[in-house]
Amino acid sequence: MNRPGPRMIPASGPAGASSLAPWETLEVHQVACFAPWFSVLRDRIRLPSGREVPDYYRIEAPDYVLICPRRPDGSILLERHYKQCLRKFILTLPAGGVEGGESPLQTARRELLEETGFQASRWNAGGSFTVDGTRGICRAHFFFADGLERVAEPQRHDMEECELVFCGRDEIARLIADGAICLLPDIALLGMAFSTLFDSTAEEGEAL
Amino acid sequence: MNRPGPRMIPASGPAGASSLAPWETLEVHQVACFAPWFSVLRDRIRLPSGREVPDYYRIEAPDYVLICPRRPDGSILLERHYKQCLRKFILTLPAGGVEGGESPLQTARRELLEETGFQASRWNAGGSFTVDGTRGICRAHFFFADGLERVAEPQRHDMEECELVFCGRDEIARLIADGAICLLPDIALLGMAFSTLFDSTAEEGEAL
Repeated sequence: MNRPGPRMIPASGPAGASSLAPWETLEVHQVACFAPWFSVLRDRIRLPSGREVPDYYRIEAPDYVLICPRRPDGSILLERHYKQCLRKFILTLPAGGVEGGESPLQTARRELLEETGFQASRWNAGGSFTVDGTRGICRAHFFFADGLERVAEPQRHDMEECELVFCGRDEIARLIADGAICLLPDIALLGMAFSTLFDSTAEEGEAL
Repeated sequence: MNRPGPRMIPASGPAGASSLAPWETLEVHQVACFAPWFSVLRDRIRLPSGREVPDYYRIEAPDYVLICPRRPDGSILLERHYKQCLRKFILTLPAGGVEGGESPLQTARRELLEETGFQASRWNAGGSFTVDGTRGICRAHFFFADGLERVAEPQRHDMEECELVFCGRDEIARLIADGAICLLPDIALLGMAFSTLFDSTAEEGEAL
């Protein structure tokens, strides 16, 4: 049995939705708060079917930035961290939470300097993406940092201890295959760094 | 001032950590449970500095799968969904939670059929990645589905309403730039689909 494929709906944007109706938010209630880290919200909603759902849970956390610091030879600066959620050491890109009053770019400049001692002369935005389509959580703001220069010693507190390492493309591919690079946001930004899909938003984006 | 770069530490894997010590987990306490969706855990830990941290919060949720269904012409099947966390319609790859007793591949086959009515004759794993390096949350299991055939009508309940659309590479790039594709896991898997970085783990991986 080979049925016809789905109707080709123009994918011209969210507003193009033809037969779908949005959900209606009837009430938003904060049910738990673990400040300053995250809070849990319970939405009461009405679906297009008319059914009310009393407990659609979401999570809200501060946004964070993720930075891809690159050298002219294509190698990328990674940090080796202990990760409590995984109970092991892994390699990650530099990252950090957006603090009150900061723009994501300001956070990225601050975190790169604090964590690594590097400054970058050229910054390009790689886009901002919602971490989870169901719970929401926060947005991750991606940046590419080029023109690196080491200008200071890292300023890390005792929960930020790490080692720095520059890795080339082939080593990064191996580290992903081996599971040493294993965080979803790192996979997304490293994929972007080596993909042809994001030229317009990242690599050829206007310098910030 | 141009200081020497970081010491080149062999990035040969987590076990290669030279000067770093792991954190010590002293106690794990579940402080909130929003079953079956997620729970909040509070770890008491001791850092290598000797300092005790009484409240390192993590989130645990069931793993999910994310599927990249591809046609021979390179176009990819996307779903247009209303997302409560964003209060708008967006385009996403087919996804779904791993239910008790299922392998991620079983979840992927089930979700693709239920949400889209398609079966795939060839499945390749794209890797499994932890959603958040601080909170943990869960793992996202990536799959590529090729050899698509429509064999049934979609079986969606009223929180899963969506429209299906096949998009080619250039349109996907535009939809990302426009923000219609805006979820971090979708960016990661679509980047993987069009990147040269993941050949060994995904596109040339052994068929499942």
